[in-house]
Amino acid sequence: MTENELSTLGEFGLIRRIQQQAGTARHLIKGIGDDCAVQIQQPEQELLTSTDLLIEGVHFNRRWISMEQLGRKAAAVNISDIAAMGGTPQSLFFAVGCPQKLSVVEIEDLSRGFLAEAEHYGAVLAGGDTCRSPGPLFLSVTVQGVIAAGSAIFRQGARAGDAIYVSGALGDSALALRLLQQGKSPPADLLARHLTPQARVTLGQLLSRQQLASALIDISDGLLADLGHILEDSAVGADLELECLPLSDAFRNLLAADRIVIDLALAGGEDYELLFTSAHQNLAGCADFSPPVTRIGSIRPGSGISIYQANRSLYHCSRGGFDHFT
Amino acid sequence: MTENELSTLGEFGLIRRIQQQAGTARHLIKGIGDDCAVQIQQPEQELLTSTDLLIEGVHFNRRWISMEQLGRKAAAVNISDIAAMGGTPQSLFFAVGCPQKLSVVEIEDLSRGFLAEAEHYGAVLAGGDTCRSPGPLFLSVTVQGVIAAGSAIFRQGARAGDAIYVSGALGDSALALRLLQQGKSPPADLLARHLTPQARVTLGQLLSRQQLASALIDISDGLLADLGHILEDSAVGADLELECLPLSDAFRNLLAADRIVIDLALAGGEDYELLFTSAHQNLAGCADFSPPVTRIGSIRPGSGISIYQANRSLYHCSRGGFDHFT
Repeated sequence: MTENELSTLGEFGLIRRIQQQAGTARHLIKGIGDDCAVQIQQPEQELLTSTDLLIEGVHFNRRWISMEQLGRKAAAVNISDIAAMGGTPQSLFFAVGCPQKLSVVEIEDLSRGFLAEAEHYGAVLAGGDTCRSPGPLFLSVTVQGVIAAGSAIFRQGARAGDAIYVSGALGDSALALRLLQQGKSPPADLLARHLTPQARVTLGQLLSRQQLASALIDISDGLLADLGHILEDSAVGADLELECLPLSDAFRNLLAADRIVIDLALAGGEDYELLFTSAHQNLAGCADFSPPVTRIGSIRPGSGISIYQANRSLYHCSRGGFDHFT
Repeated sequence: MTENELSTLGEFGLIRRIQQQAGTARHLIKGIGDDCAVQIQQPEQELLTSTDLLIEGVHFNRRWISMEQLGRKAAAVNISDIAAMGGTPQSLFFAVGCPQKLSVVEIEDLSRGFLAEAEHYGAVLAGGDTCRSPGPLFLSVTVQGVIAAGSAIFRQGARAGDAIYVSGALGDSALALRLLQQGKSPPADLLARHLTPQARVTLGQLLSRQQLASALIDISDGLLADLGHILEDSAVGADLELECLPLSDAFRNLLAADRIVIDLALAGGEDYELLFTSAHQNLAGCADFSPPVTRIGSIRPGSGISIYQANRSLYHCSRGGFDHFT
């Protein structure tokens, strides 16, 4: 018998191993290893919680992403939901449905990546579940964070006249995925944006602390789809300037050869940048933003999104946002 | 096109429908429909959190359980982890990986059962995730509850000399499952214990409020396995009295025909009864317990579990507890 096999280690052996690697935190009275995690509550703070599923063959393809990168990404994209409220991540819960063919080494790579990413954002692994999957690899991640009471930024606060901003650059992740699907090797910067996205926690905290944003969301389904969520919840419309979309050098290089690539910046998804609206018309010039933010349009009365090209004609995107069932 | 098809309704249409059915609660500032749920924190309380996976072909078989029952069970078994700390459930997060063949009606049955069960325990659906599954139906549930600060009952407090108690009756769920697997129709009481188990929230609250238990766990993997978790965490051993195991009439009827059935009460799993240790030697006589509790043995120094028969000879159980990987 070899310890490399999951069936030798067993479910509880696996949990013990992960428990040994998980860190501790001041707010955590009891982490992994009981029926529940037990945590201290702070009355001046509100609790933020979000749950995400990541399913093999839907959200990721193991031909392209290593188990360690997958662990990192699972933690980061979930923490991105805390950033999208302006909060601070504290605790993660990681549930894994493992296909029988998965080795202990692969699961340890997965949990090492997950733990490293959690630590990067100051969060701790506080619990989870492991079981056998008769189908693909399934991950479910729940994140808890905190925010000063009354400071959470919702999707619903955008007002006509507000400026629309986005952090970082758009479309890199979706472009990398398209190249992978075409059997090509994406440039390293693009690939990193797809395999190991970053959660914009510091930027979100700055926006909530300084009350700079009227509405906030992270871009997971694509700029147009996620802006659509803000517009619907705020009962307003938006005008976007196509030429203002922030694009990386690598993205621009590929865009030069094929103009349709711009639709990946509009609707590709998995950017995990922050998209927000603000009464401040010139925020982008402030030096404090890391990554930088770019103004890409304005909120107007009405509904829907109009995308203007440099010549003021309307642009029609060929892609919708990602919907799991359509 | 018919609204019966998930692809017509779409991911966001489905989320909107569930959102309309979800209730509200005083602690919940923002529920479904933003990047995170936002909740008030109470400083005199601690936060309890637990995550469970339920996977088709591993945890359930849709030939035997309706979608509504499955929704009820998913909520109840997760809430059982709050009961196992002595706490009060507050919020649930429900993530569903849907096979393409699942209809909107089936998903609504699932969520109706889930919501009804949550409401039964005073908990609210506060968030979740839905996506397509290329494999079986996958459910992931996260529950949050609260407990008076310092009152949570862990697995680790059992001491030599403590009495061991269990609530309700053991083995009904596992026996019903065995009959289903054999193609037989279980008696209605047994079947209900398997398909729609109850979380022992009121009993758990009583144990924590009156400080009656030194260690507490809910029985999901089987009496021996879950008692084993208490023993390991408390560094003690246990003597059990086989004749003292609480058994239902339906269980006794089948036991009379086949003595080996007793092993399902010892190691069958999915009882979701509370198992606890206490310095009080005669708790079972107190009238307050609903369901009643039964003393089944004692904690002793050392390690491991000795099971005594009426003639004082040792009994050897033929089954281990459930382990997902062995």
